[in-house]
Amino acid sequence: MIVPRLIERKREGGRIVEPEWDELIAAYSAGKVPDYQMSALLMAIFFRGMDRGETYALTDAMIQSGGQLELSHLTVARIDKHSTGGVGDKVSLILAPLIASLGVAVPMMSGRGLGHTGGTLDKLESIPGFRTDLSLAEAARQVEAIGCALIGQTKEIAPADRKLYALRDATATVEAIPLIAASIMSKKLAEGLTGLVLDVKQGSGAFMPDPDRAEKLARAMIQLGADRGCPVVALLTAMDRPLGFACGNALEVKESLDALRGSGPDDLMEVTYALGAEMLLLAGAAASPEDAWTSMQNAIASGKALEKFREIIEAQGGDARIIDRNDILATAPVQEDVVASRDGIVTGIEPRAVGHGVIALRGGRRTMEDRIDPSVGFIIPAKPGDAVKKGDTLATIHALDSAGLEEGKRALRNAITIGDEKKDHLPLVSTRITADGAARWARPSIS
Amino acid sequence: MIVPRLIERKREGGRIVEPEWDELIAAYSAGKVPDYQMSALLMAIFFRGMDRGETYALTDAMIQSGGQLELSHLTVARIDKHSTGGVGDKVSLILAPLIASLGVAVPMMSGRGLGHTGGTLDKLESIPGFRTDLSLAEAARQVEAIGCALIGQTKEIAPADRKLYALRDATATVEAIPLIAASIMSKKLAEGLTGLVLDVKQGSGAFMPDPDRAEKLARAMIQLGADRGCPVVALLTAMDRPLGFACGNALEVKESLDALRGSGPDDLMEVTYALGAEMLLLAGAAASPEDAWTSMQNAIASGKALEKFREIIEAQGGDARIIDRNDILATAPVQEDVVASRDGIVTGIEPRAVGHGVIALRGGRRTMEDRIDPSVGFIIPAKPGDAVKKGDTLATIHALDSAGLEEGKRALRNAITIGDEKKDHLPLVSTRITADGAARWARPSIS
Repeated sequence: MIVPRLIERKREGGRIVEPEWDELIAAYSAGKVPDYQMSALLMAIFFRGMDRGETYALTDAMIQSGGQLELSHLTVARIDKHSTGGVGDKVSLILAPLIASLGVAVPMMSGRGLGHTGGTLDKLESIPGFRTDLSLAEAARQVEAIGCALIGQTKEIAPADRKLYALRDATATVEAIPLIAASIMSKKLAEGLTGLVLDVKQGSGAFMPDPDRAEKLARAMIQLGADRGCPVVALLTAMDRPLGFACGNALEVKESLDALRGSGPDDLMEVTYALGAEMLLLAGAAASPEDAWTSMQNAIASGKALEKFREIIEAQGGDARIIDRNDILATAPVQEDVVASRDGIVTGIEPRAVGHGVIALRGGRRTMEDRIDPSVGFIIPAKPGDAVKKGDTLATIHALDSAGLEEGKRALRNAITIGDEKKDHLPLVSTRITADGAARWARPSIS
Repeated sequence: MIVPRLIERKREGGRIVEPEWDELIAAYSAGKVPDYQMSALLMAIFFRGMDRGETYALTDAMIQSGGQLELSHLTVARIDKHSTGGVGDKVSLILAPLIASLGVAVPMMSGRGLGHTGGTLDKLESIPGFRTDLSLAEAARQVEAIGCALIGQTKEIAPADRKLYALRDATATVEAIPLIAASIMSKKLAEGLTGLVLDVKQGSGAFMPDPDRAEKLARAMIQLGADRGCPVVALLTAMDRPLGFACGNALEVKESLDALRGSGPDDLMEVTYALGAEMLLLAGAAASPEDAWTSMQNAIASGKALEKFREIIEAQGGDARIIDRNDILATAPVQEDVVASRDGIVTGIEPRAVGHGVIALRGGRRTMEDRIDPSVGFIIPAKPGDAVKKGDTLATIHALDSAGLEEGKRALRNAITIGDEKKDHLPLVSTRITADGAARWARPSIS
């Protein structure tokens, strides 16, 4: 393998074959191929793409660079959900215990906040004592014992992806679809799944606002799953406004607890049930979407889902009293409402502005070294299309101090627009994509 | 300057402005921008190109990264010639003393053998004692004293280009035309020239065999020169067969001495005079091409050009007895003729095969660490179109030993083809390109 010849071949539109990917990624992981050659190759891939076989080979090589969750001895289905990232997206915190409470194993690996979006790990760590840094062996034991583990990308899983991602971030080569697909799937497929549900966000607050590109990414990941014998179903969901009301780590955990208690916001529950139904169907744990929705509603109504969350929190060292008490999670010292400055219709709530507002409040990171405060954020009960009167409360800011309050107000002034006429916004769940193709998503008629 | 944002802008087809190039190249030279970011940018440039202003800015930034030949106090014209590289191309060795003998300063910076082609520095160093590693100050003094210095790219000149070129070589980003133009011109323009003549090789033995790309490269360099106030004229010349008879370092020096004595091969003299005439015209040292050719022929006939070569060799510590004696230069211990295996017409002499043959004989490098033997090579008096009889001598191999002889034979068997019908080959000099455009080159009617 002569690396400049590989780069040249890709540059000229040729393909890199599977043994070459294996050798290249192994050599790169071992520090024998320098970053400067890899970044030139990544940029050539940005322009030339990779075909299905190449994307598979790269993904496989990245999986082989590390360990995997050993769950293949389990007879139960093992299903995870992955979201491309949004603002107010706390679906994982609800789905993991909900689906696990229905007898499906959920080995869930999540990330930290990135750009304007929050991260499930950061949210979980607002639960005092909660450990997300389980080893693969610990996580496997926990999945076997209680059906769920909520972990971060350990150093053991796909270390080549970790190294490559850092390089892509520094060289403007993040955006290539086959590289994104390979990166996500190398981590997910290392979880030993029997199925995967993707939540592909669309709209202004998504990392990939262009719906065509978002759909292409979904298809690339579906193909990768199919090639590894792991069926993948993707739903395209709305991220042109935040999901639910709460944006901020502890605030989102509280809203997730509300959801598991049966009082979550409608939009959040709709997306949660839509994704959860796909997980149950992939697991063979539901006969139809209707059946799946009913099961989930029952698991919440009966308290089974909330009890599963208690088990998970206890297993991972967290303070499980949060299940019953609201005063354990951090509360911001300063809170203030933001009101409508005029009569009208809420025409938009821009997720990026809200997400950057959470960062300004110290609830997110500008660099990976920043420490975050779990208590801060926004509660925004207003939704696009709502009619409001001057002086109505649109949102509540949770801040550390008065300077934070001002930052929060500035962010919400940018984020929330009020006009005279209703504007279109995206359907919450628009499209369902499987290996067989894409179709309009339809809500089951049950509820 | 946030480098990933610069890379992203170029990746999306945008431009990098002059102060950004200055900052980027200065930071890269200082080791503050890592190679992996630069190589990603280079690959983006490969796909997106650079416009005239960007190419100028990069060139200027690379020049500013080092020192320059301080010749601006001289009243005489300062003209160099640059070749894109060929096999048997010893034109520089003849032109430099020839043009300097006519009162034009020739500060000539050359390179080493690259790929299948030879390098002027390697040829010069087959002259015992000849030093090519003059400092800029030494070279400037020598140009002032005797009108010519033959040097390598010192560490002082355009160090950023040196660093970038090594990176391009390792990352398959050599071939981008604006990068090639900027690299060549950053070195040439640092010589303090008042004019530059380019010998752009065409045909199978050229680095850029595609004539359209070769012409594009010529135009990019002409524009760069024009933007720096240094007029550039380019001639497109044939490299579908070796130039002259000799291929190999000491053999080429001997042929250059023959040329300066008035008995050089016709094709070599034609290309030498064509390029030399452009140098004299740029210098204002000739009124017309006819005038230029006559001057050069007279300088050779009178021995003035040969005497200038003696001065240069003496000034640079070489053994100037080579001017008068043929036994000073290294001679290969084993020599053997290669004869025609059949009656017919020489249909081709493939320069790449000849060049690789010289390397196989140890007359060129496979890696920059290889030591070369100056004595080896080929004398190939046969030319495409020659009628030959079975048993006629086509070439002579100069080798270190019998194993070398076999390598040489193998190479020439691949290189020289004999058929029944004449095949077309490129005109020796086809096109003349200036800032005003391209025109068919015409031989002056004088000779």
